[in-house]
This record gives sequence, structure tokens and C-alpha cells, in this order.
Amino acid sequence: MIRVGILGATGYTALELIKILHHPQVEITTLTSRQEGNPHVSQVHPQLAGRIDLPLEDLEPAAVSARVECAFSCLPHGASASAVARLVDAGTRVVDFSADYRLDSADVYAEWYGQKHADPERVGKVVYGLPELFAARIPEAQLVANPGCYPTSAILALAPLLKAGLIEAEGIIVDSKSGVSGAGRTPKLTSHYPECNESVSAYNVGRHRHTPEIEQVLSTAAGRKIEVIFTPHLVPMDRGILTTAYARPTRPTTDEQVLMALEKFYERMPFVRIVEHLPGTKDSLGTNFCDITARVVRDRIVVFSCLDNLIKGASGAAVQNFNLMYGFAETTALS
Amino acid sequence: MIRVGILGATGYTALELIKILHHPQVEITTLTSRQEGNPHVSQVHPQLAGRIDLPLEDLEPAAVSARVECAFSCLPHGASASAVARLVDAGTRVVDFSADYRLDSADVYAEWYGQKHADPERVGKVVYGLPELFAARIPEAQLVANPGCYPTSAILALAPLLKAGLIEAEGIIVDSKSGVSGAGRTPKLTSHYPECNESVSAYNVGRHRHTPEIEQVLSTAAGRKIEVIFTPHLVPMDRGILTTAYARPTRPTTDEQVLMALEKFYERMPFVRIVEHLPGTKDSLGTNFCDITARVVRDRIVVFSCLDNLIKGASGAAVQNFNLMYGFAETTALS
Amino acid sequence: MIRVGILGATGYTALELIKILHHPQVEITTLTSRQEGNPHVSQVHPQLAGRIDLPLEDLEPAAVSARVECAFSCLPHGASASAVARLVDAGTRVVDFSADYRLDSADVYAEWYGQKHADPERVGKVVYGLPELFAARIPEAQLVANPGCYPTSAILALAPLLKAGLIEAEGIIVDSKSGVSGAGRTPKLTSHYPECNESVSAYNVGRHRHTPEIEQVLSTAAGRKIEVIFTPHLVPMDRGILTTAYARPTRPTTDEQVLMALEKFYERMPFVRIVEHLPGTKDSLGTNFCDITARVVRDRIVVFSCLDNLIKGASGAAVQNFNLMYGFAETTALS
Amino acid sequence: MIRVGILGATGYTALELIKILHHPQVEITTLTSRQEGNPHVSQVHPQLAGRIDLPLEDLEPAAVSARVECAFSCLPHGASASAVARLVDAGTRVVDFSADYRLDSADVYAEWYGQKHADPERVGKVVYGLPELFAARIPEAQLVANPGCYPTSAILALAPLLKAGLIEAEGIIVDSKSGVSGAGRTPKLTSHYPECNESVSAYNVGRHRHTPEIEQVLSTAAGRKIEVIFTPHLVPMDRGILTTAYARPTRPTTDEQVLMALEKFYERMPFVRIVEHLPGTKDSLGTNFCDITARVVRDRIVVFSCLDNLIKGASGAAVQNFNLMYGFAETTALS
Repeated sequence: MIRVGILGATGYTALELIKILHHPQVEITTLTSRQEGNPHVSQVHPQLAGRIDLPLEDLEPAAVSARVECAFSCLPHGASASAVARLVDAGTRVVDFSADYRLDSADVYAEWYGQKHADPERVGKVVYGLPELFAARIPEAQLVANPGCYPTSAILALAPLLKAGLIEAEGIIVDSKSGVSGAGRTPKLTSHYPECNESVSAYNVGRHRHTPEIEQVLSTAAGRKIEVIFTPHLVPMDRGILTTAYARPTRPTTDEQVLMALEKFYERMPFVRIVEHLPGTKDSLGTNFCDITARVVRDRIVVFSCLDNLIKGASGAAVQNFNLMYGFAETTALS
Repeated sequence: MIRVGILGATGYTALELIKILHHPQVEITTLTSRQEGNPHVSQVHPQLAGRIDLPLEDLEPAAVSARVECAFSCLPHGASASAVARLVDAGTRVVDFSADYRLDSADVYAEWYGQKHADPERVGKVVYGLPELFAARIPEAQLVANPGCYPTSAILALAPLLKAGLIEAEGIIVDSKSGVSGAGRTPKLTSHYPECNESVSAYNVGRHRHTPEIEQVLSTAAGRKIEVIFTPHLVPMDRGILTTAYARPTRPTTDEQVLMALEKFYERMPFVRIVEHLPGTKDSLGTNFCDITARVVRDRIVVFSCLDNLIKGASGAAVQNFNLMYGFAETTALS
Repeated sequence: MIRVGILGATGYTALELIKILHHPQVEITTLTSRQEGNPHVSQVHPQLAGRIDLPLEDLEPAAVSARVECAFSCLPHGASASAVARLVDAGTRVVDFSADYRLDSADVYAEWYGQKHADPERVGKVVYGLPELFAARIPEAQLVANPGCYPTSAILALAPLLKAGLIEAEGIIVDSKSGVSGAGRTPKLTSHYPECNESVSAYNVGRHRHTPEIEQVLSTAAGRKIEVIFTPHLVPMDRGILTTAYARPTRPTTDEQVLMALEKFYERMPFVRIVEHLPGTKDSLGTNFCDITARVVRDRIVVFSCLDNLIKGASGAAVQNFNLMYGFAETTALS
Repeated sequence: MIRVGILGATGYTALELIKILHHPQVEITTLTSRQEGNPHVSQVHPQLAGRIDLPLEDLEPAAVSARVECAFSCLPHGASASAVARLVDAGTRVVDFSADYRLDSADVYAEWYGQKHADPERVGKVVYGLPELFAARIPEAQLVANPGCYPTSAILALAPLLKAGLIEAEGIIVDSKSGVSGAGRTPKLTSHYPECNESVSAYNVGRHRHTPEIEQVLSTAAGRKIEVIFTPHLVPMDRGILTTAYARPTRPTTDEQVLMALEKFYERMPFVRIVEHLPGTKDSLGTNFCDITARVVRDRIVVFSCLDNLIKGASGAAVQNFNLMYGFAETTALS
């Protein structure tokens, strides 16, 4: 049994993580938060009543390290790096949900996140925890940067086609549609029910922080610099991301050829399903699957990918990384 | 043309009111709020872009009185009475959306609202602006207390049956289901999209502030003291209230007899529709109608009433009152 | 490993059942439906792509019996009894999702379901598969009648209070609110998205078929005849039932006393959570839990129960029954 | 007063049309449908109870022509042309909601709609009823082809930029997100509540029938052949379309320049609002407005347009056309 802890356990990703970590090899021993009065976790997440018996504690990283072998950090960016640096220094293995260790450059980080990196030494040396692309480096990693939800959907759709040379590097458009849980659990007007229900809108156009993350990983896949036009949209539903990606084929192609290239790439990967129909986000709701299909329309390849932003886009991916880090079957506790 | 003003114009009821006051006899001249920087109203309500050209101003009641003949107060309870008292003293006619003047007793007010009434002199002398019951007193009123949304749905369902002696006064149950806009526009966890979407729950059971209001008006209708069991529920939709009311018939009866009694009561009233089918809240969405039907089930009469909480439950009713106050056709600007 | 089959595998309850039966002691070997062309189950339920590899077959009961030890029938009422009778005669154990074996009287069945019972001999001899009340009889049962979703929510809320003599038998009101999946997967106008979205309505008032089922089981619990006023409502969400039940206490009581009685009754039962807060259906979404609380309001006890209609209200309960039938831990494969 | 009739009055566009035609210059005299038994329109649309007193009649076009000056055809394509041809021959003026007269070529029609055109003589001679582009031809028209909902959103976003030479004609991408009412009122699995709620998906990729309509009108605007990649998506909400269009600027440009070009084009047009913020579909819900903004992102101009598919995308546009046809103020009865 691996003793694990979760830092910042009051949000949606932590809730999903706790549910998934009903894992045969895991004992959750520690949950942290700054909530006053050390409430029981089920007071903050009523779904967990009768399922887990732990308080939320306001603990220093050192105290966490003393209690767990592996920590999942669900802290916000900035705060996460501060804590993670100390956990890692103390020998704890960590899966970091924040963006802090995803980018390879502290300068790019500072530019997009508007603050200096709290642990610049490690930046660029941390494995990006997308097992479909970087599985080889995960088992030995002490620290894994868990990918963002939009990047996962965009990268899984596009990386195989870039690697195979099937699409041009220029002019890639990523039009994504996300449920509201992606905005987190802090009440604000844009996720106030009567504001976002029965409405669709784009947001953060041209300046969403997942842009450099998508570009960095696709550039690695392509072996050359990739820039994308990324447009996130908010859709009135709890969960799910549908990414519609547009790219120009390098040579005339067909639906079948594109699907075959995708199938080949994901052949032995348990959590990507290449499908022939146009998937809805509901098909992967509550699961760690990412469903992908593609169509050739006039002079473009259009790739569609669907996933649950809280599972494959966050907590499911984290457990997939955890399984690889500890040598468990990749699918343990996941479906 | 009547010059009108709206106090507290940033919420949902004010937004609906502005849309309805596209009224042939109305000129909106003044909108107030405490928002810094006097933003244009369409910056706060993008729906109003191109439809009204007014800033939100932080004005004292005296300044409002100087500009308008009639004011609609959408201020919160407490704050509303303070402003309304000064408007009325200055000779302005007022429709008050808050609960401040609905109850006949300053003591009951203090008990349920947890604060002393700011204008106790007027309490008990103000007409309760439900035209279906109190139309006679509205035309002459300087101040009208606009009813609450739940009370309107419950009273319209039950008052005619009490008046006709068709139901017992004891043991009335009011089980109401409301959309989320009823909770207002201030972000909070209970109306955060991922919390209330895909979920139904009861709230404020046994202590919702609309309870004494329902009881007071039904008591007036019955000519004796009425107590109700009132249970409000939150339903994942923007607007609409469905009230399911249970009462014991005073003598054996049938669906037809109950419907006939309701029809007779509302015979000449333009905004109550007695229907044979079981109405959905969508049937009255965006309108000033209240749809009512009834069924006899075993030893109970079950009455169902549906309305749009922001229209018949708030801003539509206010304009209906305004029309009566100024001698316009009751249905002007309403549908 | 128990070989199991599912009859009528195209609906929502079958889909949930297949997902739950990712059970360490189960091998699903057979799925039936009348769909032409023996499609793969994942063509009908895209969520199952990559998770199960079985066709939908149009099989006679005898063929199913030859392949499985235990069958779950998700067939509609009437059709289910015809098939179940033959499965049981052939020695197969069966959990029947339909209403066919829930009622103790073929006459009552005929009255409410509008057709003669296809297997009247067995009527009245089959255990009602609500483990919280009838666990003793389930382990030996060859055939279990899986309860309806509304009855489960109403009975779990009320039976302990009736058994303890805390509430009067007369005048019980059951006001239930359900998500749309309860209406099944066959498209019809009442569950067409633009009709039921953003709307709440009551339906089948006074004539819903779950009425006699609720009354029968509560009568057994009370030891005397119980009649209820049952009013089902449709709420715009996928899943979940909230039942608000109103009953008169037999003697003055408090919230604490009622909660204590409920806690005592469900003390060792893994899937009922007595909570102090007012639960939302989301708290039990995707789980086999039923959350219950109560409040004393004036002269009534109001009991609230929440569950997921497809899990605790259908497929989770079925697996709970299955676990008891085969001597597995009651919670196996359930959460 | 103009006597008007509506053919095919049972669907959502007819319902909206009836509500809008509460128009000071209109008397609705005739509603047709093939529903048996000539039900009252409010039996089919409960929202209309107490608002209009007309039966649905199964009438031949000749009978309609005898009763009305102007007819709105809400019949499906194919059926519409058959009826419209006879209405027009009889001298009735017509606004046709179907696609039958939108395309300029009967061959293109046959290719995309899979059937021969029923009235090929008129094809290519009918004005496309988008007043923002073709207002000059509408006042004299006897027959107006009311535009499709997606085409309206795409054309209003792109036509001004093409006309002004600000964007390249090649490689335009139109990624649209629509509410479910766009799929009509006939129940089917894809609009069954539990299937499409909490899910987003693309549909009809590369083969949606609005593609040639968008291309034809944009080609007219550009003065050269335009092909677009059009991807419609289904979003869980009743109404609204958000179109996100991607085009390459012909020369380096800024947000301000693009917005200025749009503002200039729509300067005197009452129903297009050029806004600076990113609009949500809710901003135009229930109105005849189309909200448009634009952003320059890397080497693309991204244009966003929002409208209510049943109003500006259908029935509101039809009344706007009607107003122009009869010389009424363009905004009469619209907001």
C-alpha cells in the first residue's frame, strides 16, 4: 500500500481524485487545505460522506512528507511550486496538477502566468505527464507535471498527425468547448448559474494560459516550432471538453487514412479510443477515455477529441501517472 | 409619458423590468446603483446594448424624486425601506420589490428578517400588490408592495379555494420548485453552476422568509389564521416556479368542480390561465401568466401553479401594478 | 466467476448495469435485444467502446439459460414476465428490473398496468429486492423483483418511521422530483430536449404506476394499510430523484429524534447515509447511496431522500441484490 | 391590418412567429397543419393559451390564399416549394422559412437536398431575405427566402470583411455551436434529453445543408467563389448559435481596425450590435439582435457572432422581412 496525500483538497479535481483513489494499492492518509477549523472532508464534499474518514488539515509540506510516499498537489499555480519544491527536496514523489512545471522555460512561465517562478531550478527538467507521449520517462520520475485539460485534448488529437507528417505545421486552429467545472469551484459571475446556463461564449481568446503548453508539446512532437490559434469556449454543462482542431494535410488524404494513422499511434494505449462516429463528450463522461475521430473536409483535416476534463483532463490522468510511477497496471482504478 | 426610475438596477429583476418597460407610456430616466464609475447599464447587462442609453448612477432618493414620477425599488430589504420612505415622503409613487412593506407587522418582519424595520410607521398600511386579490386598492396607492415570487404562486393557487370554502384551513402543504435566478445575481457556492446543475435540493426548510407572507395573505383570504408547511426547492433551470399545493377538501369533490371554482374566480383576470393539462413552467416562461390546474387525489386536492419568477413573480407584476396605478390597460406592455 | 446475461440491453438501466458489472466475480457472456443485425453493444452505447466486446443478440430465454447462471431482465413489463418465467423454470436465477413481480396481487397488477399478468402463479411469492428491508429473503431467492426508483426513494424515507410508530399512517404525501432518464431511452415529445429543458412539471398525478408499489411496501412496514398521495415531477437533469415526504408525527418530536430513529434503523446498512444537511441529488450522483434527512416543520415531519435513479434506483440495487444472492460482500463493485 | 397565415404551425419557428406577430399591423387569420381533428393551436403550443384563438386547419394553398394577404411557410423543404408555388401564383405574398428558394441553382439544391426541386422556374429569382445585405430588393418582393440560422450567423460575421477586402477568400473556417431547438420539434434520439444534455458533439461534418447557402451568399459578397469549412456542433441549451469564424487577413491588422470595419458596415442597421466584449448567446436570447465581435490572434482574424436561432435565425428575421415588404418600420414588433 502506498500512503498518499492530497494538497488543496477542497476543489473539484481533488474530489474526483479521492473517488478514483479507491485504488487497491492506495491508502489516503492526508488531506490539506486552509479551511478554518479542520472540517471533515465530507463537510466540504458531501458526496464523500461515508466513503472516507479524514479531516482537512492546514499542514506544512514537511508534515505532509513525513506522512506520505506520494503527494498530489491540487494547489493553484505559484502556491503549488512553493510546496512541491519542498516536498521533492524531502524525497516525496509528487504529481503536480498545477501548471507550474509544465512549461520548459521560466521566462515563458513568467510571461503567461504574470509572476516569477518559485522554483526555477527544476523548470525544464520535469516530465510532462501525458503517458501517451512520454510514458518512458514517467516510471522513474520523482515529479510529474500533470497536463492541462485543454492541452490533453488538443495534443492527443494533433501530435500523432504531426509526428507522422500528415499535417502542416502552420495555421493549426484549436477550437475547444468546455464544461463549467473547468473554471474551478470558487464562485464568480462567469460561472454563476443564471449567467452561464443557456449560453455559449468564447473567453480568453488569444491569451488563454494553455496556449504555450499546447504549442510546446506539439513543437516537441513535430520537431519544429508550432504555433496554434487556440479559442476556448464555455458550454453549459458540468464536465467535458470537445476539441475541434483544423489542420492542412501535407498531401491529399482520406478519412480512412487519417483514422488509420491515429489508430496505429494509439494501438496499445488503453485510454484513447479512435472511433468512426462523431463522439459526444458524454461518451467519455466519468471515464479516463479520450475519444478521437477525424474527417477530411475540403482542404482541411478536422480532428475531434472528447474527454472528461476532471478525469482524463486532470485526476484520471494523475492516477494513470501514479500507476506508471509505481509499476502498477496503467489502468488500475481507472475505467 | 410617465418618467420612471429604477433603484438598484444591476440585478435580474431590474433587467427584466427594463425590458418590459419598453412601454408606450413610459420613459425610463434614471437608473441607480452603487457600482463605481457610473458604468453604462449595458456594461452590466449586455442584453441591453443598443436598447437603452443610460448610466447607472449613485443617487440619493431626493435626487431620484426630482427626476421621476414613479420609482421601482429593486434594492435589498432594509435598504429598500430606507430609500422608499424618503421617496414617498417626497411625493414619488413607488413599487417596492423588496419584502419591506409586504408584512402587516413590524414585529413579524423583525422576527423573520432579523432586523428592525426602517420605516415602521407605514407597515400595515401598504397595499399588497397582487392585483388578482387586491386590485381595488392599487389605483389610488402611492406605495405598492410587490409580492414575492413564491407567495404569488402559492396564493394564486390557494386563495380562491379558501375563499370559496372548498379546502380546510389546516394542514396546507406548499411544495415549491424554483429556478436559480430566484437566488439573485450575487455569485455564491449554492448557485455556482457545477454545484446546482444536475441537482435538485430543498433549502431553508421551515424558515424561508416567504412563509409569513404566504400565511398572512391566505389568512386574509380565508378570514381566519392559516399556517402552511412551505418547502422551497432549487431546480437546475434559469427561471420558473412550480408550486404543488396539497389541501384537504371540506367536502367530497371532483377535478371539474375545483377547476370550475378556479375559473370562476379568475374569470376576468387577464394573467391567470386555468388549464386542464398539467402545466410546465416553460408554458409561462417569459410571460406574465400564471397557469393553474388541480387534481383530486384520494383525500386531497392538489393544486399546481406555474409562473416565471422574474415576470409574474417580480417585474411583470410590478408593471401590472404600475398600469393599475396610472389607469393604463392592465395588460399594457405585458404578454 | 458467475456468468451473467442481460435481457433488453439497449436502455439506460442496462448501460449502467454493464458498467457496474465490471465486478471481480462476474463475466458478462450474453446481451440480448431485438435490434436488427446483431450490432455490437458499443454501437448502441458508445460509452462502452473498448470496455466490453459482445454483440446484442435476439435470443430466446432458453438460449440465455444455457449460457448464464444469472440473468438481469431489463425488458419492459409484460414482456419481462414472459421471459423471466421461462428463465426461472430453466433454473436460472433472475433479477427482474420490471414491475412484473413487485406487486403481491395479479389483480392490482392488472388494474394499474392494464394487462393480465403473464405469470400469475409466481405473483406474491417473489421477494421485493430492497435489501434495507428484505435482506433476509434475498440470499436464497431464485427470483428477485428489483424495486422501482420512486418506490425506493419513498420507502427508504418513510418505512423506518412507520415501523417505529413515529408517524401517522394517514395522509402521507410523497412529492418526488426526477431527472429525465427515468422516462427511458425511447424518444418522445415529453423528453424531447427543447420541451423538458428549462421546465418543471408534474405528470401522471394520481395514476403513476409506482403508487401501489409504494403503498404495498409501506403497508407491510406499518403492519396496516397505507395510502399515499404520490406526485411525480419531471426536472431538467439527467439523473437523480429527490423525494420530499410529509407525514404527521404521532407525538411531539424534534429533528434530532427523527434523525436518530433513521440512523438507528440504517445503522449497519452500507448504502443509506443519514445526513444533517439538506442533500442535493448530486451528492449521490453515480453512486449506490441514498441520502436521507428530516425536519420537523409545524405539525409535520418532512423527510428528504436523494438517490441516483439509475443506480440505487435500478442497476446498483440490482447488483446489491446479486451480491446478496451469491454471498459476495454487499458493496462489491458498488460505491 | 394585414391578414396573415402560417403554414405548418406546429413547430418551434411557428410558435415564435405567432408570439412575434402580436404586431400592431397584423391579424393572424389562418394556421395550417396536418394534425388530425383540427386542434386549437394552444393544445399544440400550451404557451399560447389565452393569447390566440385559432384552430389548426388542414387547408390547401388556394384556401389559404383566399384568406390572407401574406403567408409564412414553416413547412419542411420540398413540401414548402409545392405550397409556396401555388400561393405565389394566386397572388399571395410569401416568406418561406424552408431552404427551397435560398439557393440559386436547382442542381445544387438537388445535390444537397436529395430531391428534385418542386418549382425550378423560380429558383435563382427569389430574394435572399437577409436585410443587412439585400434590403433593397425586399420591399418589392412577392416571395422572400428566409435565411437559415447558421448562414445568418456566418454571413453577418464574414460578409462585411470580405466586401471590404480585409480577409482572404481561401481557407475560411466556420465553427458553429447551436442549441437543440435548431433540430426541430420531432422527437428523435439525438435530441432526446438524456442523450444530448451534458454533452457537446459535432454533427453532419462536411455535409450540412447550410454549407452551399453560406458559400453562395459569401461568394456574392466577395465577388468571387468562396468555399468554407463548416462544422456545426450541438450544445445543451434550448436556443442560440455562436459562430466562431477564422479567416486570414489580407494585410496586418488590429482588433480595432476589424471592429471599426464591422461597425461601419452595420452603422444604420438596427439588429446587428458590434460589441467589444466576447458575447454569449444569452445576450441576444429572445431578441432579434445579432452580436458580433472580432479578435486578431496570431495570423488570423477570429470573428464571433451570436444570435437566437429561432428569432434572428428564423422568425424574427421573417418579421423583419415582412416589415420591409409592407413598408412598416423595420423594428416593428421586434426587440
